[in-house]
Amino acid sequence: MPEEINHALLTDLYELTMMQGYFFTDPNKEAVFDMFFRRQPFGGGFSIFAGLDPLLDAVENLHFGGDDLDYLDRQQIFKKEFLDALANFAFKGDIYAAGEGSVVFPNEPLLRVHGNIMETQLLETMLLNTVNFQTLIATKAARIKNVAAGDAIMEFGLRRAQGENGALSGARAAFIGGADATSNVLAGKRYGIPIAGTMAHGWIMNFATELEAFQAYANLYPGNCILLVDTFDTLKSGIPNAITIFKQLQKKGIHKFGIRLDSGDLHYLSKEARAMFGREGVAEAKIYVSNELDEWGITQLKKDNAPIDAWGVGTRLITGDKDPALSGVYKIVARQENGEFIPTIKISDNPEKTTNPGIKNVMRFAAPDGKLLADLLYLEDEKDELLQRLAAGQPIRLFHPSIDYTHFDLEEYGTFKPLLEPVMRRGKRLQPPKPLPEIKAAAAAGVDALWPGNKSLINPLRYKVSLTQRLKQLKFDMLREYHP
Amino acid sequence: MPEEINHALLTDLYELTMMQGYFFTDPNKEAVFDMFFRRQPFGGGFSIFAGLDPLLDAVENLHFGGDDLDYLDRQQIFKKEFLDALANFAFKGDIYAAGEGSVVFPNEPLLRVHGNIMETQLLETMLLNTVNFQTLIATKAARIKNVAAGDAIMEFGLRRAQGENGALSGARAAFIGGADATSNVLAGKRYGIPIAGTMAHGWIMNFATELEAFQAYANLYPGNCILLVDTFDTLKSGIPNAITIFKQLQKKGIHKFGIRLDSGDLHYLSKEARAMFGREGVAEAKIYVSNELDEWGITQLKKDNAPIDAWGVGTRLITGDKDPALSGVYKIVARQENGEFIPTIKISDNPEKTTNPGIKNVMRFAAPDGKLLADLLYLEDEKDELLQRLAAGQPIRLFHPSIDYTHFDLEEYGTFKPLLEPVMRRGKRLQPPKPLPEIKAAAAAGVDALWPGNKSLINPLRYKVSLTQRLKQLKFDMLREYHP
Repeated sequence: MPEEINHALLTDLYELTMMQGYFFTDPNKEAVFDMFFRRQPFGGGFSIFAGLDPLLDAVENLHFGGDDLDYLDRQQIFKKEFLDALANFAFKGDIYAAGEGSVVFPNEPLLRVHGNIMETQLLETMLLNTVNFQTLIATKAARIKNVAAGDAIMEFGLRRAQGENGALSGARAAFIGGADATSNVLAGKRYGIPIAGTMAHGWIMNFATELEAFQAYANLYPGNCILLVDTFDTLKSGIPNAITIFKQLQKKGIHKFGIRLDSGDLHYLSKEARAMFGREGVAEAKIYVSNELDEWGITQLKKDNAPIDAWGVGTRLITGDKDPALSGVYKIVARQENGEFIPTIKISDNPEKTTNPGIKNVMRFAAPDGKLLADLLYLEDEKDELLQRLAAGQPIRLFHPSIDYTHFDLEEYGTFKPLLEPVMRRGKRLQPPKPLPEIKAAAAAGVDALWPGNKSLINPLRYKVSLTQRLKQLKFDMLREYHP
Repeated sequence: MPEEINHALLTDLYELTMMQGYFFTDPNKEAVFDMFFRRQPFGGGFSIFAGLDPLLDAVENLHFGGDDLDYLDRQQIFKKEFLDALANFAFKGDIYAAGEGSVVFPNEPLLRVHGNIMETQLLETMLLNTVNFQTLIATKAARIKNVAAGDAIMEFGLRRAQGENGALSGARAAFIGGADATSNVLAGKRYGIPIAGTMAHGWIMNFATELEAFQAYANLYPGNCILLVDTFDTLKSGIPNAITIFKQLQKKGIHKFGIRLDSGDLHYLSKEARAMFGREGVAEAKIYVSNELDEWGITQLKKDNAPIDAWGVGTRLITGDKDPALSGVYKIVARQENGEFIPTIKISDNPEKTTNPGIKNVMRFAAPDGKLLADLLYLEDEKDELLQRLAAGQPIRLFHPSIDYTHFDLEEYGTFKPLLEPVMRRGKRLQPPKPLPEIKAAAAAGVDALWPGNKSLINPLRYKVSLTQRLKQLKFDMLREYHP
């Protein structure tokens, strides 16, 4: 499959049929869309926004090639006039976005797209495909890194990832969220992520004995000798053979070596291994583990004081395990009528799917010590008034986004900052791509700014995402208009 | 990200470090690897093997480019002599495989790779990445198609898929397994899958009223007018407005139209819609539904006689939902020593991870009516003897793969056929890629050949995957050798 991905066609058919609809009904209308998600993945209390840089690259380069147009023509649903317009298509709109790596919460916009109704509609599917997946995996990695308490996390998921790009963009997102290295060599090359690995059972099975296999490996890689010890019998064969090798390495002055446990009771085996290393004078040996690990398994092993130094995490990180998709959506929040933007709302028979109308941003409040207090959705046209109140240190009333008249007053706050900033103007990026370590650092700082309750694996504290009184009133009035 | 995927580096680092290890220890050794999976996904009773054609393409084109070698060189773990060898690398081995679209079961080889130990090792990660994911999604699609009892299934998962290729190769696999169409336009173009779609809520929110939005759509797409009715109020607004449009279409002689329900109680709403259509004289209107559907949701709606005609299935099909990775592995089963192949075994502290040793194939037995009876793993060097017994109609003793001396005698069988057939010889494909509809037809025929119990969603009948007496004895002897 070594082919170029053309993002113009990497879209749902209905985006193109709707585009054509707008082309023939109201081609110059402008619209504003929000991207947001409805539910924290993994039952958690926070997410890490990821995928922005690859998305902006793709948007900047969006175009329809000749064979794309031929393909569309053959479907017999598109008129020549429309296809001719697509031949000259480029995205010329504006995008506002949270910084990549930001900590984010449900029902607040992570991206806001302004532009012609046709171009803004076309972005929907590719935007969601990129941001939903990378945000999911960055979030999973942050949860895992958080419980590993400083230990190294290695992303080993390539063989179980959902396709090539699931592995590549997943490795990128995992690094942003907290993985320290990946086994995926192409991800290393493409994104500059450190690469890591040990050996497979096949290496050992290719030699007449386990000791010969270890010996051959140690001769080749004396400086990074992590031996896989569970091919035949971990305690009776694997670890004793590994100790034989480690003693040889010690004689050469090498003290960086270790084992990997990939099956069995990782708690018991790591304790036994640690004791054997102590008795045999190779206490510096490191213990790596792998085998269906995730934040839950690591938490249990940490709680039981398993003497483990580094964690290889595969399937459950690179796929998101039982929660393999972020529920991100892209909804129109304002449309142009007679030259003015008017807010739009989607109501739905599932009340939790009702959207927040209007052109909005999010004010993020932090305490003087940097800990996050609350996010407040506000309408862009009340921004000046809000900033004046904030500059004067006045209390701010935050309304619950859906429950009747529930609100609280934020009386003390340290800093406040809009979450969304302009990242693309008239189709051009405003900044070059950020170095990945910078995005990773932003994610780590965001996680640090959360309260322990927000990071709890079980029943996490729900972070407040609120509406201003004006936004709440607008939503209420629009609901009443449709259901008098 | 419009870049070429180079499969040579789309691999775990340890494949390359092990390759280098073989290069410096025993570069001419030959080996044989099996790919198999250990557990049926989704708690089901069967899987559909998919991903073979893209895999063979990738293997045929495997090579290391100059910048790949530069990247590896910079890691300071590879020697010049080895990197020079990689510069001339091409896969020159043989591959045997089950036909793409075959029904397959745990612990039987789906692919068998013969070749030099270096090239066979390198294939591991890319092979698993391709086959694990596509087999998972083809299987999910087959489960969904099976409960939909002939209704159309549309794959709508692009926005929630795990990256671009998760969406593309997922759409391919979903089509093989049973989806009739995809919303993913690029998948349609690339693989020739029919494309389908309706409209988004955004279309409706872009007009002053729902009726105006429907009207504009009907004017443009009179021949395929599927109207989304849940933007404001399904029963009070969406369906009445749709009926107004349908009556107009009827006057023009058009009778192909319908609605899509995307939220709320799909059972209640579809029954109400069907009743309203009857009362209003537009009974020919079709009812499409979507919203977190899968084989379980469709089964429930079918059982309750919801009058639904077509099913849009998104996230839970394209990701595999709570079971997002197939547990496929690639294990060495024979290695060369003094010019002869000797079987290898991996034992493991988790007994279910113990492998079946030796160079094997699978004899698949079917009853005279075509229904599958059992699969029998045999050693290739007992093939002639086995075929003689089968030609003579003699009973065959099938041994349980791991439980002590459990066996049964297959006395009557209609047809028998080896599952694995040669697909690549000395690095070259033996056949051109199969047309996708042919693979899809093979999958459907395979599902038809299963017993209802194999297809049950709850506690499915376990299909027999057995060993010959000689293979069972070989495994037993090797286990005893390591644990006397």
